[in-house]
Amino acid sequence: MRTWLGGLLMCAVMAGAELSPRKALNLEVAKQMAAAAEAEAIKNKWNVVIAIVDEGGHLIYLQRMDETQTASVEIAPAKAKAAVSFKRPTKAFEQAIADGRYGIVTVPGVLAAEGGVPVIVEGRVIGAVGVSGVQSAQDGIVAKAAVDSLMSALGK
Amino acid sequence: MRTWLGGLLMCAVMAGAELSPRKALNLEVAKQMAAAAEAEAIKNKWNVVIAIVDEGGHLIYLQRMDETQTASVEIAPAKAKAAVSFKRPTKAFEQAIADGRYGIVTVPGVLAAEGGVPVIVEGRVIGAVGVSGVQSAQDGIVAKAAVDSLMSALGK
Amino acid sequence: MRTWLGGLLMCAVMAGAELSPRKALNLEVAKQMAAAAEAEAIKNKWNVVIAIVDEGGHLIYLQRMDETQTASVEIAPAKAKAAVSFKRPTKAFEQAIADGRYGIVTVPGVLAAEGGVPVIVEGRVIGAVGVSGVQSAQDGIVAKAAVDSLMSALGK
Amino acid sequence: MRTWLGGLLMCAVMAGAELSPRKALNLEVAKQMAAAAEAEAIKNKWNVVIAIVDEGGHLIYLQRMDETQTASVEIAPAKAKAAVSFKRPTKAFEQAIADGRYGIVTVPGVLAAEGGVPVIVEGRVIGAVGVSGVQSAQDGIVAKAAVDSLMSALGK
Repeated sequence: MRTWLGGLLMCAVMAGAELSPRKALNLEVAKQMAAAAEAEAIKNKWNVVIAIVDEGGHLIYLQRMDETQTASVEIAPAKAKAAVSFKRPTKAFEQAIADGRYGIVTVPGVLAAEGGVPVIVEGRVIGAVGVSGVQSAQDGIVAKAAVDSLMSALGK
Repeated sequence: MRTWLGGLLMCAVMAGAELSPRKALNLEVAKQMAAAAEAEAIKNKWNVVIAIVDEGGHLIYLQRMDETQTASVEIAPAKAKAAVSFKRPTKAFEQAIADGRYGIVTVPGVLAAEGGVPVIVEGRVIGAVGVSGVQSAQDGIVAKAAVDSLMSALGK
Repeated sequence: MRTWLGGLLMCAVMAGAELSPRKALNLEVAKQMAAAAEAEAIKNKWNVVIAIVDEGGHLIYLQRMDETQTASVEIAPAKAKAAVSFKRPTKAFEQAIADGRYGIVTVPGVLAAEGGVPVIVEGRVIGAVGVSGVQSAQDGIVAKAAVDSLMSALGK
Repeated sequence: MRTWLGGLLMCAVMAGAELSPRKALNLEVAKQMAAAAEAEAIKNKWNVVIAIVDEGGHLIYLQRMDETQTASVEIAPAKAKAAVSFKRPTKAFEQAIADGRYGIVTVPGVLAAEGGVPVIVEGRVIGAVGVSGVQSAQDGIVAKAAVDSLMSALGK
């Protein structure tokens, strides 16, 4: 039941409500990041899927280079989603397995293969890049190229 | 047990093996189709996800325009997959429902909303475009722009 | 907004569209491949499910020999799909696990049991055979018989 | 804890156990049924997937005719499974919808499209045929050809 006092407190609380500022990736930025990743892949003659997701893990952009294995159509966005939702590179999970911490395979959302890299701006994870198609360490190099290109464009 | 005669027959049968010729979409073509769809969407001030799949229903390309509802990230490729795997526009299913044929909602893979359009070259379905984000009839206009641009480029 | 110049550029870009040539399996070839696999299984008194999928991972043909475990009805096409979508025999995943690379169990689409073998023609993976029912190494022998019969018929 | 009396009762109970006799489809029969269905499809120039399942709903045989829509790879066995698990033709569900009983779309396993036909021998459903690829009434004609061929061979 509301009382006069309760109403007053409610007003006070609501007056203090303040939304959080965010910076977000967008399609234009995602296309530029993907172009940088594609250039790295072409340079190495690697065929890969490149996926870029937003802070919610939802795809902004995906492209499959010709002759890439179709399994990568699922894997690349899954790596990106894992990277953004755990706020870490998927390489960390691959390393954990290598260190004998096998239990993480039971954790929902874990994908223990390099190639998912978070996009970190001003200390916050605002998206991620996922790459799949070649060896996981190579996938990671392509994903890093996308993130590096953004950092460079932002002057960081 | 194999006999000499059995071996002979096997050879005779297998000598007749003949593969079927096909034509396939590729990333370069898919990017061009998506650019045509994006131009149509921008012209109309519509925010959409544009997805292009190959003959097997696997994504070649996906882009989400800024401010598009995130649900469309799943819907656009699902429309494309439905269009390619049923060899018809998803508008056909929307129409079937409008005509009272409700039973099709129980058929695996059916998606009864306009916006999935097959890519037909030389009488064969070789892929599809799926668009989602605005009214389904509007999604259909954007998807058609992608397919028309390819037909135009192929001189058909 | 479209301008005269924009329209011109669009035309110029789309004029370069070119589709990629492909060769595809068909039902006649798949039946012949399955017959070769079945002959190999009968010779060894093995009861198996034999599945053959196209480049997109979709079934063209499946048969279950009498007394085969019903689980293989799901496993055989899953092996074939894994082989075609990763462009490698599923034995590679079984070996990876044996080598201690446990992380791959978290990668979507991986099936770490021998018996899925890709069909490679002119350097491209155009489909796969999946066999399940006996020991995985035995499944692999039956699947290989199907692929070998095609290679033999194509004179390769 | 078992006692002398318990042991005696157990013996008595087990002596009365009697398994139920069954007749089952097998691969040889399934191939013959599929051949009859394929002949009917070819006669009508229809491209379809033909699936045959056992009493448990598990595939014995599946073939996809060239140029059949890939969606049918999932739909044909689903129709067969619905027919065997509900012991009725899937046409019954399509009719129910036509009669306004829309609620059945919420019933697990229902597939309201003609083309799934049970195989009934001596009053028992021992399997089913599922066909998909053309109009559902046409799918039903092809499925019936398979079942009719078996009935004819059994002299019924």
